[in-house]
Amino acid sequence: MRTTSGAVFGGLRVAPGSLPLFRQIYRTVREAILDGRLAPGTRLPSTRTLARDLCVSRTTAEEAFAQLQAEGFVERRVGSGTYVAAIERTATPRPHGRPPRPAGPRPISSRAAAARRHAAFPQPAPVRAFSSANPDLDAFPLGTWRAVVARCSRRTRAGDLGSEEPAGNPLLRETIATYVTTSRGVVCTAGQVVVLTSSQQALDLIATLLLDPGDEAWLEEPGYPGARAALLAHGARIVPVPVDTDGLDVAEGVRRSPRARLAYTTPSHQYPLGPTLSLERRLALLDWARREGSWIVEDDYDSEFRYEGRPLAAIQGIDENARVLYVGTFSKSLFPSLRLAYAVVPEDLVEPLVRLRGSTDGYPPSLAQRAVSEFFADGHFGVHLRRMRELYRERRDALVEAAERRLAGVARLGPTEAGLHAVLHLAPGSDDRAAAERAARHGIDTLPLALFRHDGSSGAGLFLGYAALSAERIEEGMRGLARALGPGGS
Amino acid sequence: MRTTSGAVFGGLRVAPGSLPLFRQIYRTVREAILDGRLAPGTRLPSTRTLARDLCVSRTTAEEAFAQLQAEGFVERRVGSGTYVAAIERTATPRPHGRPPRPAGPRPISSRAAAARRHAAFPQPAPVRAFSSANPDLDAFPLGTWRAVVARCSRRTRAGDLGSEEPAGNPLLRETIATYVTTSRGVVCTAGQVVVLTSSQQALDLIATLLLDPGDEAWLEEPGYPGARAALLAHGARIVPVPVDTDGLDVAEGVRRSPRARLAYTTPSHQYPLGPTLSLERRLALLDWARREGSWIVEDDYDSEFRYEGRPLAAIQGIDENARVLYVGTFSKSLFPSLRLAYAVVPEDLVEPLVRLRGSTDGYPPSLAQRAVSEFFADGHFGVHLRRMRELYRERRDALVEAAERRLAGVARLGPTEAGLHAVLHLAPGSDDRAAAERAARHGIDTLPLALFRHDGSSGAGLFLGYAALSAERIEEGMRGLARALGPGGS
Repeated sequence: MRTTSGAVFGGLRVAPGSLPLFRQIYRTVREAILDGRLAPGTRLPSTRTLARDLCVSRTTAEEAFAQLQAEGFVERRVGSGTYVAAIERTATPRPHGRPPRPAGPRPISSRAAAARRHAAFPQPAPVRAFSSANPDLDAFPLGTWRAVVARCSRRTRAGDLGSEEPAGNPLLRETIATYVTTSRGVVCTAGQVVVLTSSQQALDLIATLLLDPGDEAWLEEPGYPGARAALLAHGARIVPVPVDTDGLDVAEGVRRSPRARLAYTTPSHQYPLGPTLSLERRLALLDWARREGSWIVEDDYDSEFRYEGRPLAAIQGIDENARVLYVGTFSKSLFPSLRLAYAVVPEDLVEPLVRLRGSTDGYPPSLAQRAVSEFFADGHFGVHLRRMRELYRERRDALVEAAERRLAGVARLGPTEAGLHAVLHLAPGSDDRAAAERAARHGIDTLPLALFRHDGSSGAGLFLGYAALSAERIEEGMRGLARALGPGGS
Repeated sequence: MRTTSGAVFGGLRVAPGSLPLFRQIYRTVREAILDGRLAPGTRLPSTRTLARDLCVSRTTAEEAFAQLQAEGFVERRVGSGTYVAAIERTATPRPHGRPPRPAGPRPISSRAAAARRHAAFPQPAPVRAFSSANPDLDAFPLGTWRAVVARCSRRTRAGDLGSEEPAGNPLLRETIATYVTTSRGVVCTAGQVVVLTSSQQALDLIATLLLDPGDEAWLEEPGYPGARAALLAHGARIVPVPVDTDGLDVAEGVRRSPRARLAYTTPSHQYPLGPTLSLERRLALLDWARREGSWIVEDDYDSEFRYEGRPLAAIQGIDENARVLYVGTFSKSLFPSLRLAYAVVPEDLVEPLVRLRGSTDGYPPSLAQRAVSEFFADGHFGVHLRRMRELYRERRDALVEAAERRLAGVARLGPTEAGLHAVLHLAPGSDDRAAAERAARHGIDTLPLALFRHDGSSGAGLFLGYAALSAERIEEGMRGLARALGPGGS
């Protein structure tokens, strides 16, 4: 069968644009071969003719045909010309111009479907009251950090470009071990530290490491949605365990799920409510884990920021049975887009955790790891934390003062001794989603506690991130909240 | 019950070291309370006495007691002194000095146990013949890269420190979309590009996204162990599909597993054997995927390095049913410790993939993403690739020449038109593990093809990474191989 190439080449137009001219020609011809407009055996015009007709150089036309030949779409016979190749197809060519769009929803795995329902991934948020519990990035010592990065970058050697150790840069592991040992009372060697990209990665890997589908896991109620997402993604059955002013109610956890494989907790500053887990409950939790052979995941996400009293040492440090996996992050103490966090795990879990990390991600980027070590070594980290604590304490004071002044009798703040956020408790029985919607209508972003509860029911409270807000914006935000929530608010 | 604190405090010694002095005191006392040597109600010495006995400042002793008090271990009664608190314990105190070590192996999840068996995570390898298929990092334009990083670092604004979009930096997504469109024949918008840390992360997320436990997946045989690990980790049943000189044998795949959910393939340069997937098989693979509603994972891991002929366009570009997930990496075109790779996926898979990424990792680090965009924008990427292709082609020539000269009649190289490695085929039926051991005894690192085979049986061949080796080291390496494999080799 001989067909003519006129229909294709007659309509061919090329124009300077994002694709090189030869690619445009190549694509058009390839398309025409694939959809059957150019049948096998069709003779194509010569590159000389094509170049003239399209006002391109001969080289351009030649390049297009050479690519088509290399890929097997055309054959070039010396002295005879270029022909569409006889490609054996098992299916009929598709109609020309049909857009490559799927017709309807296409199935994904049940795990991915679950993640789609549950995952709350971080979205860049504008800094308005009280949208996020991010640190104040405007207060970050950017000049110092840039200088450290530039120095580390200058010192990069070819050897730093290759694969890092999957557990993390040895110097950074040492740095982290020293930091958590001296500041957080963790008992560990550098060999127990695994450098990761985020707390979220730590929780995902830990869930993968320790849970089989159907295993029970305690989650604080209300609790951290990221932990819920990670646990659910691995098929865990979540047992919500209530939180009171002493933190996670361990006795209630034991009642509800005595044989859970894992308990997730935020003992220094319960997320989101804010209490500290009491010493008696810490000991009770450790006793339970020892007795049942269960694991404790201690998420120490913002313990750096405590404004009153002393930070309590990590549970990990008083664990005598190597049952605690401790998780920390630099997202709050440094900044989120750094993408560095860490887990300190019992010795026997290091190797399986690192292997799992190897098969899901690889290892952490080198430059950022070296820069953080250097930032610590030069003493910048300690200085930065002290400055931030000072700054956030002032903002905390502004928040507390404004809440008392503007919301007395309407709502009261939960614990504010620590952290980058606080919870505003509404009258018992209030619908917090409705309250958050009212606040939004007054230009104030809050998160209803319902979002942190496993059953999605109202927790009669609003999550307020404040650390990144100036005292003025906190005051404005509270004014807006008072209008929204106060008598006659709508 | 009154006990005395003499036994504890009499033996207490502190010395300058890695832990601050007050922490040493705090830890010793905490330990003694936890193990029962200091019973509830025991009166502790005054800070004045303690400071004198230990030759520390009163402030140091005071700090230690304040921390113990904050954590609930001791109570301080004004005018009376410091007493061990009455801590309600549900278990008996542990005996003093028992090391916090697990007694025996402790169970981990079955998935983690599988990863432990299968995962081959990247380990930093010394550059010796023929240990790795890494690019030559000594040839990387480090000065240029450092300058780009320094410039991007200087331009970092507070806004860059916060959360990046989970799909990746918008500018880098544009850069990648343009690159794969013009260089690889991929058809996509920037919205279909997801920036990831590594091909491994791409494969892990794709397996999570598309496979339920028990689903069948085609894997090239021999094939990429990282893909095998990712598929197995998600409970896939792997169907090995043989590879010949035209690449993956699609017809055989259809015979062995007609309804597989997914086919993993390396069409531009089959890993590890090296052939290119023929056009007819590409079309057959696409037809199969369309017919069965299956997915094709196209891992284009080293297509940048082709030394003869033209690189064939990606399968993704001729797919009309949005069935291909295309994976690329900067680990080989730039360097491994950068930790940046990408997937180009059908539009309807972008959001679920990004959500999954959000619940397992978060989002990619900002500085590295901006630096890569800048490296492209300044034209450095293209220049670097051209230089590396030139360099690696010379090394390829040296490898081919040395193999012909030294191993004729003993072994022959597979395809060498592309890539950073080649396979040395031994006599049919050879035991390649034994051959690799013989080579190792001559100081030559190789990987037996058995490691790339699903059943672990011999593939009668050795994987040789050569791109990072100078011509001299390639020659030396071949001499060693000839001694090991040649007549009389041992």
